Amino acid sequence: MGLVVQKYGGSSVADAEGIKRVAKRIVEAKKNGNQVVVVVSAMGDTTDELIDLAAQVSPMPAGREFDMLLTAGERISMALLAMAIKNLGHEAQSFTGSQAGVITDSVHNKARIIDVTPGRIRTALDEGNIAIVAGFQGVSADKKDITTLGRGGSDTTAVALAAALDAEVCEIYTDVDGVFTADPRVVKKAKKIDWISFEDMLELAASGSKVLLHRCVEYARRYNIPIHVRSSFSGLQGTWVSSEPIGDKKVEQAIISGVAHDTSEAKITVVGVPDKPGEAAAIFRAIADAQINIDMVVQNVSAAATGLTDISFTLPKTEGRKAIGALERNRPGIGFDSLRYDDQIGKISLVGAGMKTNPGVTAAFFEALSDAGVNIELISTSEIRISVVTRKDDVAEAVRAVHTAFGLDSDTDEAVVYGGTGR
Amino acid sequence: MGLVVQKYGGSSVADAEGIKRVAKRIVEAKKNGNQVVVVVSAMGDTTDELIDLAAQVSPMPAGREFDMLLTAGERISMALLAMAIKNLGHEAQSFTGSQAGVITDSVHNKARIIDVTPGRIRTALDEGNIAIVAGFQGVSADKKDITTLGRGGSDTTAVALAAALDAEVCEIYTDVDGVFTADPRVVKKAKKIDWISFEDMLELAASGSKVLLHRCVEYARRYNIPIHVRSSFSGLQGTWVSSEPIGDKKVEQAIISGVAHDTSEAKITVVGVPDKPGEAAAIFRAIADAQINIDMVVQNVSAAATGLTDISFTLPKTEGRKAIGALERNRPGIGFDSLRYDDQIGKISLVGAGMKTNPGVTAAFFEALSDAGVNIELISTSEIRISVVTRKDDVAEAVRAVHTAFGLDSDTDEAVVYGGTGR
Repeated sequence: MGLVVQKYGGSSVADAEGIKRVAKRIVEAKKNGNQVVVVVSAMGDTTDELIDLAAQVSPMPAGREFDMLLTAGERISMALLAMAIKNLGHEAQSFTGSQAGVITDSVHNKARIIDVTPGRIRTALDEGNIAIVAGFQGVSADKKDITTLGRGGSDTTAVALAAALDAEVCEIYTDVDGVFTADPRVVKKAKKIDWISFEDMLELAASGSKVLLHRCVEYARRYNIPIHVRSSFSGLQGTWVSSEPIGDKKVEQAIISGVAHDTSEAKITVVGVPDKPGEAAAIFRAIADAQINIDMVVQNVSAAATGLTDISFTLPKTEGRKAIGALERNRPGIGFDSLRYDDQIGKISLVGAGMKTNPGVTAAFFEALSDAGVNIELISTSEIRISVVTRKDDVAEAVRAVHTAFGLDSDTDEAVVYGGTGR
Repeated sequence: MGLVVQKYGGSSVADAEGIKRVAKRIVEAKKNGNQVVVVVSAMGDTTDELIDLAAQVSPMPAGREFDMLLTAGERISMALLAMAIKNLGHEAQSFTGSQAGVITDSVHNKARIIDVTPGRIRTALDEGNIAIVAGFQGVSADKKDITTLGRGGSDTTAVALAAALDAEVCEIYTDVDGVFTADPRVVKKAKKIDWISFEDMLELAASGSKVLLHRCVEYARRYNIPIHVRSSFSGLQGTWVSSEPIGDKKVEQAIISGVAHDTSEAKITVVGVPDKPGEAAAIFRAIADAQINIDMVVQNVSAAATGLTDISFTLPKTEGRKAIGALERNRPGIGFDSLRYDDQIGKISLVGAGMKTNPGVTAAFFEALSDAGVNIELISTSEIRISVVTRKDDVAEAVRAVHTAFGLDSDTDEAVVYGGTGR
């Protein structure tokens, strides 16, 4: 008998009907002879409603209490889901993150899991129950306070439980049929990927693909837990993410896994920086001290006449104001002329392990962009990824052009998006 | 420095405005030099909304999961209240029933508190925090499952915490100004009671007064915790419930504390019971085995000719169907002719310790009812209470007549009802 961890996002359990549909799917997995652990997010808009309530009583809700508040959301969905399963004649028990043994550090609102001690879950399973666990939440090791894991936290809960329980697979149910070769909302002919390696998935997630978050894939790779991303609406086979292809059929590793894009970043250019050692370090020390993560960095060739150069980097738009402030404060020490802020950019990334052994990929990528009339502003590469920054308005066209150029287009418009996005 | 436990019902924290108003009141108590522990119910209609959701997924929500669901309500209100207090510049931390050490038995949906171990609350207070505790909930001693305490549970939580923390007073904030000599919705001239003994309050609660539940008063009497029932809207002095009057001013024990009424009961008459030993026992054994609590019991004088008698008793209307079923099933053993069920009755009770030493009270009570043209169907008395059952339609008139006859009428219409009722 296998052990399966399933995770359902907020859009899958948005209302009573959704909860009943999910309950049936869970019972099916149980009937197939599995022990089943289910991780569930808060229902649809619950979290937003709670955040709105908090804003009404306090302009700056405190971390500890904010976590206490938000975790009410999963408490509701998990109890309802357990009831719905019992109503189908199967035993189910719901558990909070704390009860399930999800131990975290003490960083409220974005805690990290440091241990999982699923003793109560194991007991519940051994007694024949389906165990329903609140996603997104845990309890801090030191103070025993309730914590939340931040964006995508429920996926991470599911993978962490799968690892701790030595599950065969962690099934992430969502509102799309799996991971696609590009965002189906942009590329109608995007294809569902049957299997993708952890490495390629990590690059896609880092490059703007939103189906799985980087943190969750990283966790799965570390403990070698296969993830099966699939739709809670269609029931079709989705995308397997694992170190090696799983099952009977041999799946060949694609040269290119997919094209990702990201329009959530902005570009800051530090103009007129003295071209001497230590300058770049001073800039990025100021940014790092402000707790800001940056993405791509490019330094122009110095203009010999002036001895000055420009340094550009990209970062999440949400951090833009903070970064500008940090640089202005450190202006005397760094000594630059001016700052330029540009939030009308977009990033397109081509991801695939096959790149390593196919030297023509980079050239074909640039040719495709050029043919589509897309101007490139920044370039960055890893062993299995090429990313460029362009004008935001060019992103959709660029993604479609690259997708076609690398032969990723499907013969049909197969991608279906079923609902909103959970957390 | 004193320690005060305050309890706020759902109507006091029905929305963000209510929460902010309550936060100010709490901060005031803290500024007055007290350590403050606050027990809070779920916001306004939250509980009803959760019950409605449960009904949508399952016709018979299970006990354990139903408790898990409902306790999300206090989680929301307590976190918001803590945020609102912090926003006023004071430290506050919220705690679930489990975190606050409210240990119960395992009877889901109506658990009883068996111990309170408020170590975390004590620590939070010693660190200068206001402690906010979820009412109505606890954790079972054996299985560590979340439980709820049933109707009026938050009041009981407050009194239990006050006892465990050796508080000076347990303040129950509600939507009326205190305990009145009669229900202000029925008797416009009802007077607020300044002080009432535990004993009289217990009789009033048992007779239909809804301001405090019997169970909560019983707990307070056992641990001798003074209760101060008052309005969260007006801020006026309310009603003190304690063993002896508290404070400087001597309050004289009133001969009559008040008039209570109850229209939630029904009457069952077992007709044609053989008048021989063991018959009544057989009837009430059948009722007790069905887990039904009865209230008043009356047996008619036997008609000598037939050797048969009738036995009538009252019970909550909600148990009527179950009781009839239990009696019918046991009909062969008991041997009665027929059953009569009457849910058009009402009970009026006069409560006051002074009754013991004032022999005229009973006579005056019956005279008042007679003068008002109210027919009496059943009578039951305790040392400090007389209750009668009448037609339901006569109850309001009867209460007013008795209230006036015993000189309880206020010179003004002072009673104000501010909102709905919490749990």
